Amino acid sequence: MEELSISINNIWVLVATFLVMFMQPGFAMVEAGFTRSKNTANILTKNLMDFAIGSILFWIIGYTLMYGDSIAGFIGKPSLFFNDNGIGDYANTTDLMFQTVFAATAATIVSGAVAERTKFNAYLIFTIVITVFIYPISGHWKWGGGWLDQLGFLDFAGSTIVHSVGAWVGLAGAIMLGPRTGKYVKGKAKAIPGHNLTFAALGVFILWFGWFGFNPGSQLGAAGNENTVAIAHIALTTNLAAAGGAVSALLISWWRYKRPALSLALNGALAGLVAITAGCDIVSPGGALIIGLAAGIILVFSVEIIDQKFKIDDPVGAVSVHGVNGAFGTLAVGLFATEGGLFYGGGASLLISQIIGIVAVFAWAFGLGLILFKIIKVTIGLRVSKRIEEEGLDVYEHGESAYN
Amino acid sequence: MEELSISINNIWVLVATFLVMFMQPGFAMVEAGFTRSKNTANILTKNLMDFAIGSILFWIIGYTLMYGDSIAGFIGKPSLFFNDNGIGDYANTTDLMFQTVFAATAATIVSGAVAERTKFNAYLIFTIVITVFIYPISGHWKWGGGWLDQLGFLDFAGSTIVHSVGAWVGLAGAIMLGPRTGKYVKGKAKAIPGHNLTFAALGVFILWFGWFGFNPGSQLGAAGNENTVAIAHIALTTNLAAAGGAVSALLISWWRYKRPALSLALNGALAGLVAITAGCDIVSPGGALIIGLAAGIILVFSVEIIDQKFKIDDPVGAVSVHGVNGAFGTLAVGLFATEGGLFYGGGASLLISQIIGIVAVFAWAFGLGLILFKIIKVTIGLRVSKRIEEEGLDVYEHGESAYN
Amino acid sequence: MEELSISINNIWVLVATFLVMFMQPGFAMVEAGFTRSKNTANILTKNLMDFAIGSILFWIIGYTLMYGDSIAGFIGKPSLFFNDNGIGDYANTTDLMFQTVFAATAATIVSGAVAERTKFNAYLIFTIVITVFIYPISGHWKWGGGWLDQLGFLDFAGSTIVHSVGAWVGLAGAIMLGPRTGKYVKGKAKAIPGHNLTFAALGVFILWFGWFGFNPGSQLGAAGNENTVAIAHIALTTNLAAAGGAVSALLISWWRYKRPALSLALNGALAGLVAITAGCDIVSPGGALIIGLAAGIILVFSVEIIDQKFKIDDPVGAVSVHGVNGAFGTLAVGLFATEGGLFYGGGASLLISQIIGIVAVFAWAFGLGLILFKIIKVTIGLRVSKRIEEEGLDVYEHGESAYN
Repeated sequence: MEELSISINNIWVLVATFLVMFMQPGFAMVEAGFTRSKNTANILTKNLMDFAIGSILFWIIGYTLMYGDSIAGFIGKPSLFFNDNGIGDYANTTDLMFQTVFAATAATIVSGAVAERTKFNAYLIFTIVITVFIYPISGHWKWGGGWLDQLGFLDFAGSTIVHSVGAWVGLAGAIMLGPRTGKYVKGKAKAIPGHNLTFAALGVFILWFGWFGFNPGSQLGAAGNENTVAIAHIALTTNLAAAGGAVSALLISWWRYKRPALSLALNGALAGLVAITAGCDIVSPGGALIIGLAAGIILVFSVEIIDQKFKIDDPVGAVSVHGVNGAFGTLAVGLFATEGGLFYGGGASLLISQIIGIVAVFAWAFGLGLILFKIIKVTIGLRVSKRIEEEGLDVYEHGESAYN
Repeated sequence: MEELSISINNIWVLVATFLVMFMQPGFAMVEAGFTRSKNTANILTKNLMDFAIGSILFWIIGYTLMYGDSIAGFIGKPSLFFNDNGIGDYANTTDLMFQTVFAATAATIVSGAVAERTKFNAYLIFTIVITVFIYPISGHWKWGGGWLDQLGFLDFAGSTIVHSVGAWVGLAGAIMLGPRTGKYVKGKAKAIPGHNLTFAALGVFILWFGWFGFNPGSQLGAAGNENTVAIAHIALTTNLAAAGGAVSALLISWWRYKRPALSLALNGALAGLVAITAGCDIVSPGGALIIGLAAGIILVFSVEIIDQKFKIDDPVGAVSVHGVNGAFGTLAVGLFATEGGLFYGGGASLLISQIIGIVAVFAWAFGLGLILFKIIKVTIGLRVSKRIEEEGLDVYEHGESAYN
Repeated sequence: MEELSISINNIWVLVATFLVMFMQPGFAMVEAGFTRSKNTANILTKNLMDFAIGSILFWIIGYTLMYGDSIAGFIGKPSLFFNDNGIGDYANTTDLMFQTVFAATAATIVSGAVAERTKFNAYLIFTIVITVFIYPISGHWKWGGGWLDQLGFLDFAGSTIVHSVGAWVGLAGAIMLGPRTGKYVKGKAKAIPGHNLTFAALGVFILWFGWFGFNPGSQLGAAGNENTVAIAHIALTTNLAAAGGAVSALLISWWRYKRPALSLALNGALAGLVAITAGCDIVSPGGALIIGLAAGIILVFSVEIIDQKFKIDDPVGAVSVHGVNGAFGTLAVGLFATEGGLFYGGGASLLISQIIGIVAVFAWAFGLGLILFKIIKVTIGLRVSKRIEEEGLDVYEHGESAYN
């Protein structure tokens, strides 16, 4: 009987693992579609390699840094080459796999923000640092039972722990790299349209699909009535927030730019998904829809402000989607949680914990990101030469073009 | 023990929900691939938004209109903002999710038939009406326990209830819109080839994959020997019919047009899938193969007749795939059902019920479709101007092109 | 209780079946992406039809030829039109479905090796022969309990039984067809780049995803602690080998050709997946990573040698990915198996069985492939005319181009 419960949980978490792994081509298609065709092979190579490298390194050391016995609430006790055939609520190896695909998600988010101008070898180096150091440590603070967890900080499936971490590192990269050539002409932002919105749309649909592994899978079990109700509820809140994000981003773009823009509706859906990730288990369906609608609105303004006010060049909007909306979604838990949320009479204590977590993870990921990119910049160099950028990274960096 | 059965059912229906949700990019890729590149962003925006809007509205009201306590067998008693954490054979919220992705399937079928000439705001309006009114009500007649169900009408996963409904509304739209500019020159139909058959083929494979959620998922359970045998059987009949449809459409196109056409083989596979949807649980594997083979043949002739005889411009063949073959598949239940089918000695009573159901749903969906499109036409307008149509909906309606 | 175990196993194998079925668009995208746009509709039609035809024929006869009562360890006793609603560890029909998608995988591998020059009707004929004769018989030797199985030959999910069989038939085809026009100029190999690496990358990600059905699904059960641990372990070894293949192929290409090539990294991931397929259940995670790293290295050299030394034109590298690495992975079981492997003190006996199996299946598949292609060549003809090849198979063979 208990063995069958374990089997059911194990199937659930494994299927969720496969769905989250499938988010990798989702990210690849979104990032390729939203950038130019001369850099497509470069984007795709980066997406393939960060998943490959991440899979290996998280198995070698990352997983235990995140989930090993806590050292002062700050980092897990590392042990090398995970090989544990034990069983808890499900197989321990299943847990490794599930956490691996989450780590790879955080890493791959960076590639969008630094697209079209980063040296490939530099990219590989910071992918390694993110996977074995930046992500597992702040991850440990919450999911490894570290200090943020003890504080009462809530982040069910990783609005902050996964998405924001990737985005804040990406933000540091985008700042250190500077904008793409031609992006700002006489101080004015120029749109550089992506080469293939069909790929971008396919990518968003794949991500939406994969998110049903990301969020409902994070329940880490499916056996018993409590899990049954929880995973169904999470599937619903996840879907409503995504839908809300798409709708509001479309409407805002329609109102503000006089055209219902596909690219903003696509990013709006992603914004809704990122925002609901922290609280998908604990907000009501109505709360989820409101969070999603707000996420879509925030997305449109965030993209505009980062692009035009701050003049930071984030080619695919990764900072707005994963960073700003990751923070918003985490904050929203403090407001909309049906237990403990401000709007539900829970007072401000949860909200304060959420703010502390958001700020702490921002400081960690953005700060280390700046240091990391600075070191790379002054050693092997971070940015390709102007000529390579103009003629395309594909031919120069990889020796092949994506389209022939 | 019973709790574990519920957990197993719940996993099954949730996984099936995710697969059916994933049919959305399938439809998006098919419709984008089979149309011209100047309208791709428009097609993709429509596909994204009908799923987003449908997800929200079916949660707000559509679900209970379809599955609420029956009012005279015609409509369910509505209640707003579904929020029910109860459990039956599986979580009630899981049922909401499963039915939501079905509703979105019906809605998205329309977009293919009206492609390349419809105003975007008009599209949003009829998507809303379909999701909250047309689909849930005829759906209630069968799956809500309404009058068609009491009559003995059989439609296991929705050849008629889902696919035909979408297609008949689409047919009404295609008629009211009239053909695309340049489609009929001096009374002769001119082929307007799609811009990317790779996307179309990818879409068909995705749909074939998703259909393993659509049909086996409609068993609504996986625990116990009866469910075990049933879902395996349904997977087999579904696959054989799809295969049969692809094979026969290819051969017929080869014989009739001297070339084995990919586009017809792709639509043939879809035709087989649509046709088996009604009877996948109750026909034998051999029956399924015959239904699929017949569906592929019907598809080729239906496309030709609608295009060249009736001069109705359905850019992606949605009416032939989902409407004509939905009706055929529903009819075929009356012939091939191993219990009650005419060919298995069951007499004509089931066949008569099937015909009544097909006709009633046609009258409902096509009739309301005509009224709906007429109202839109005389108020906000249904069709873009000739100039927008010629230069492409992407730039004029959405302010961005799909390819740069 | 036992009934619920069966239900759990049945869900697992069915979900795995759907994932393996989804590898079909993976192959289609890889093969289309790695070849030229003038032959895309041809590639896609072949991929669609081999799955459709294979699904029908494996149901009609192939399955029992492979799994029927063994006749002298060489072939299963055939019986027609599988229709068995019995239950073993899971539904018998589920087993038919799972094995069908494996057969279709073997068949579809051939299409890549013979791409861009094969007559479409010839392709259909050898697809039929592979599905109903070549694949089921050598498959029977191992998985049907035939002579290779009795010998102690190990091939868990089919490095040899599935992947190599397809590749060796493809090798025979590539030899009999000769290279594409323009491939060898004055005895020197000329690269003919594929038309769309985004599709190729998408295809590889899809295949990686589908492989989580292929390998963990081959455990054929998920209920109970043994299955729980096994499927998690297999997911891990599968993922590590894929990652290793991508990393090493990238590094080798970087070192050897001065550029980190996306196309080789993509094929490296596939090589790792193929190589781990035989031993995913029985090697350690570290062993899996080594096998994957080796597979990526072998891939790069194998592609070079086949292309430049042997002057065999295999447009997508199918022989290197599925044939050479299938053989390597099968061999590696004799070295890395934690029970019985040479490196783990198991002596050479397993290694010898593995070599016998590799050679026997090579002789069978390559030998019959040569005979088959010879017969087709002298009867209906194997290769399109030079003019058709130059102008593209799409327009001449199928009457439509993929891109308009």
